[in-house]
Amino acid sequence: MPTTRIRRASLLDRVVTAEEAARYIRDGMTVGMSGFTRAGEAKAVPMALAQRAKTDPLKITLITGASLGNDLDKTLAEAHVLSRRLPFQADPSLRKAINAGEVMFVDQHLSETVEMLRARTLGPIDVAVVEAVAITADGGIVPTTSVGNSATFAILAEKVIVEINTSQPPELEGLHDIYIPTRRPTRQPIPVMAPDQRVGLPFIPIDPDKIVAIVMTEKLDSSASVQAPDEDTRAIARHLIGLLEREVELGRLTHSLPPLQAGIGSVANAVLHGFIDSPFHDLTMYSEVLQDSTFDLIDAGKLNFASGSSITLSEAKYRAVIPNISHYKNRLVLRPQEISNHPEVVRRLGLICINTALEVDLYGNVNSTHVGGTHMMNGIGGSGDFARNASLSVFVTKSIAKDGRISSVVPMVSHVDHNEHDVDVIVTEVGIADLRGLAPRERAREIIANCVHPSYRGALEDYFERALKRGGQTPHIIEEALSWHVRLRETGTMLLPETVA
Amino acid sequence: MPTTRIRRASLLDRVVTAEEAARYIRDGMTVGMSGFTRAGEAKAVPMALAQRAKTDPLKITLITGASLGNDLDKTLAEAHVLSRRLPFQADPSLRKAINAGEVMFVDQHLSETVEMLRARTLGPIDVAVVEAVAITADGGIVPTTSVGNSATFAILAEKVIVEINTSQPPELEGLHDIYIPTRRPTRQPIPVMAPDQRVGLPFIPIDPDKIVAIVMTEKLDSSASVQAPDEDTRAIARHLIGLLEREVELGRLTHSLPPLQAGIGSVANAVLHGFIDSPFHDLTMYSEVLQDSTFDLIDAGKLNFASGSSITLSEAKYRAVIPNISHYKNRLVLRPQEISNHPEVVRRLGLICINTALEVDLYGNVNSTHVGGTHMMNGIGGSGDFARNASLSVFVTKSIAKDGRISSVVPMVSHVDHNEHDVDVIVTEVGIADLRGLAPRERAREIIANCVHPSYRGALEDYFERALKRGGQTPHIIEEALSWHVRLRETGTMLLPETVA
Ligand SMILES: CC(C)(COP(=O)(O)OP(=O)(O)OC[C@H]1O[C@@H](n2cnc3c(N)ncnc32)[C@H](O)[C@@H]1OP(=O)(O)O)[C@@H](O)C(=O)NCCC(=O)NCCS
Ligand SMILES: CC(C)(COP(=O)(O)OP(=O)(O)OC[C@H]1O[C@@H](n2cnc3c(N)ncnc32)[C@H](O)[C@@H]1OP(=O)(O)O)[C@@H](O)C(=O)NCCC(=O)NCCS
Repeated sequence: MPTTRIRRASLLDRVVTAEEAARYIRDGMTVGMSGFTRAGEAKAVPMALAQRAKTDPLKITLITGASLGNDLDKTLAEAHVLSRRLPFQADPSLRKAINAGEVMFVDQHLSETVEMLRARTLGPIDVAVVEAVAITADGGIVPTTSVGNSATFAILAEKVIVEINTSQPPELEGLHDIYIPTRRPTRQPIPVMAPDQRVGLPFIPIDPDKIVAIVMTEKLDSSASVQAPDEDTRAIARHLIGLLEREVELGRLTHSLPPLQAGIGSVANAVLHGFIDSPFHDLTMYSEVLQDSTFDLIDAGKLNFASGSSITLSEAKYRAVIPNISHYKNRLVLRPQEISNHPEVVRRLGLICINTALEVDLYGNVNSTHVGGTHMMNGIGGSGDFARNASLSVFVTKSIAKDGRISSVVPMVSHVDHNEHDVDVIVTEVGIADLRGLAPRERAREIIANCVHPSYRGALEDYFERALKRGGQTPHIIEEALSWHVRLRETGTMLLPETVA
Repeated sequence: MPTTRIRRASLLDRVVTAEEAARYIRDGMTVGMSGFTRAGEAKAVPMALAQRAKTDPLKITLITGASLGNDLDKTLAEAHVLSRRLPFQADPSLRKAINAGEVMFVDQHLSETVEMLRARTLGPIDVAVVEAVAITADGGIVPTTSVGNSATFAILAEKVIVEINTSQPPELEGLHDIYIPTRRPTRQPIPVMAPDQRVGLPFIPIDPDKIVAIVMTEKLDSSASVQAPDEDTRAIARHLIGLLEREVELGRLTHSLPPLQAGIGSVANAVLHGFIDSPFHDLTMYSEVLQDSTFDLIDAGKLNFASGSSITLSEAKYRAVIPNISHYKNRLVLRPQEISNHPEVVRRLGLICINTALEVDLYGNVNSTHVGGTHMMNGIGGSGDFARNASLSVFVTKSIAKDGRISSVVPMVSHVDHNEHDVDVIVTEVGIADLRGLAPRERAREIIANCVHPSYRGALEDYFERALKRGGQTPHIIEEALSWHVRLRETGTMLLPETVA
């Protein structure tokens, strides 16, 4: 069996157990592992490492594409294996360790990690661990359901461990497009001119002698637990589609729109879903993670092509899509996250980018990461790569959280991931604020009128009117700007006492 | 005389007075004018417009490259001609009108304005007014000391007014490289692969029939009032050069460094000056504004080539450089600001970018625009285009302002222009904080140890230690985070009462 999966005969004797392979990873090392938004992560070796740490404690710097599935970040965090973690995560246990200061989390724009590795301001990568469907006759590694940073990890690492996942269908081969930018100072343009353009190889090209161990595995990716669209997310989708229809009427867009990007999470997935019943057609995506909605749009005949860096699906969708990947293959490509998120390509293609905010403020600054201004949720992910370079940068959020105790529209965000310059449109279930070409005072009126939940509108309007008396390009009452967050912390709600009573 | 400056005979009869030309500009119009960091702005027509407004009030939206010289923004603001102004300014009177809410100022990343014009989410441009040294036989416009957004204004405008400035030497012709990206969805890569590469035309190509008026002028650009390097800025330069020397020792950089970008203002200019007495050589610049230091570096034999969008000099330097521009011409190119600042090119070339902060915080977030979190200084300018895409993003500032009443290192910045993800290194005269690859808690220790003025270090350390008890990825005492700004507002200083006494 291995010979169809390991097509280079000289590598067949490198097959070992996960425990044996994990021995290449030692205390203090920097390890690059495959895995992006719970898709295509190395599974057996990190598990063996966590197991070993129980009797033989060790600490590593773990760099991945993005978040890992199969509770790996949880298991590694609870085994105290992680001293540093980058560039993204989305696990409750790891989050806890990060917020307690036990794990140093370096939150990065997802296109940038490999630039730092190449420039040697991060790294070196001692060991790379990459999940694959196969190793080619030349020793090339064929990734599974994500590419992430795997190619650069394998190319730069001293030693490479490959996990061959036999549960992943061999038909995944041919899905990937591995292109790595040439080195500075003679770097050439990234030649991607359209979402469906292939510019690289279908495998990760490395010196096969670097492959020190191969582990056979069969565990599947864990499924995404996205929430189904609800009344609120349907309203958000409706508002956004309304705006896009007006753009078509104005002759600024056509019904096939520029390529779409949609961020992680339930809200963005639900919004994308909304395009199924829209007048738009012949759509394309140039995105990072392809969620259920991507395949629903393909099935509905709305989406012609999707470029991403990973495929992350609910359990039912996974069972429908992955075994039948051949059916979708001519409409899909998976690229390194450096390319899926590259500012050069995002700007060239002029994407419409839809990302999710935790909170936004009066002036359209966005916090996507820090609850209460201090505690990490997941990380900035690719949202900065996309929002800065989009032709239309949209942020979506429900207007309230935690049963109304939190307003997602506040006087001043408690942490800034995206500032007003990178935020064109804000949508909540209440309505849509089109901020393009507006000055901050105008942005505030547009947001108050369209996005705030009725239970907070009066208070926000009152804040703004009083702030105006202080003047400025971006009026604030500085001693009160974060008072809603202080009130939440002290009383459990952002609502004023009189409103609560 | 005009025939050497106006080489298309059919346009000779379009020469009119500034007053006559200004009549094409009417109430409610959107006007695009040349001018970038006080260089190459149209001079006579806006003056005539301000004059006319005294008896015939009108309001326009004024879009430029960046700031205007010759007190034009002041004159226009005081004549109440400006209803909207974008994308940058640096004038005290206009600043006052903006902060009073009289002029709607739309502060933009300088590479992005023309994308919005092309997409028609801004505009249309009714009239473009462009300063030129000459009009070619084909009707092409040869700009003067800046390109800025002039090319796109002229190409998109319905009507074009050209101001031929006969004080500007004809030898400026050949300095410019006008390249405009092709339209989406078939946009091609920006073909700039090195600072000295020319990819466009030496003039702005337009349909000559759109030139409705030509005005002859002779007023010079106003000179920059940059402060000479002082003890503090010399220390900042020394710290930065020390870091770069260590990068060379580590084999990560060579002595000719990646191309340099340096922001506007006294501090950045002074820091660049510091390279004269450094071990670096064969330097190049890929920057926005070329200040005195660029020419001092060329004269010192340190700088081989500089690409920019404008030349802004002190009076003495202007007299030395502009009349002798032929001497420098093979080492210089002026590009549209879209190209000088393009994320695609900045990232490809891997620039070292040096920009100035008003204030930075514990975690390395930067405020470059909003005094006290509310009042506009100048605008974000190109700093976001550069900092986000740099291979090394440096922010410089003196550690204190206003005789020590303000600490430029604060617990939380009162406005975020650049967040921690885009800030690699912070330098004050006290020292340098190298934040690359660090988590927020580590960034804080590095900044406290190296950048804070001694009179504020204790207070900042105390804040951080107490914030740590609250936990989080980015610990803050949310009700105290902006208290230094509140104290400044209420007591006139950020120093605590006991420290002052
Ligand atoms: C912002 C983000 C967390 C939203 O995720 P989501 O699943 O769409 O959103 P939800 O509305 O379900 O919110 C997630 C949680 O945040 C909470 N939340 C929402 N707004 C909040 C606010 N203003 N303050 C505090 N908590 C808030 C919700 O209550 C929910 O909590 P729970 O997990 O306890 O139920 C997610 O999109 C993210 O991590 N984004 C950053 C990375 C990114 O944008 N990548 C894009 C490129 S792929
Ligand atoms: C930030 C910026 C204003 C600094 O300008 P500079 O001339 O180098 O800096 P200075 O130290 O002289 O400071 C300018 C003024 O700000 C004041 N200042 C500095 N730090 C301050 C702070 N933390 N709070 C309030 N005021 C402050 C100074 O006292 C000085 O005031 P003055 O004009 O009354 O003397 C300028 O670089 C800028 O506008 N940057 C944004 C645009 C940009 O970065 N473009 C780069 C691409 S070209």
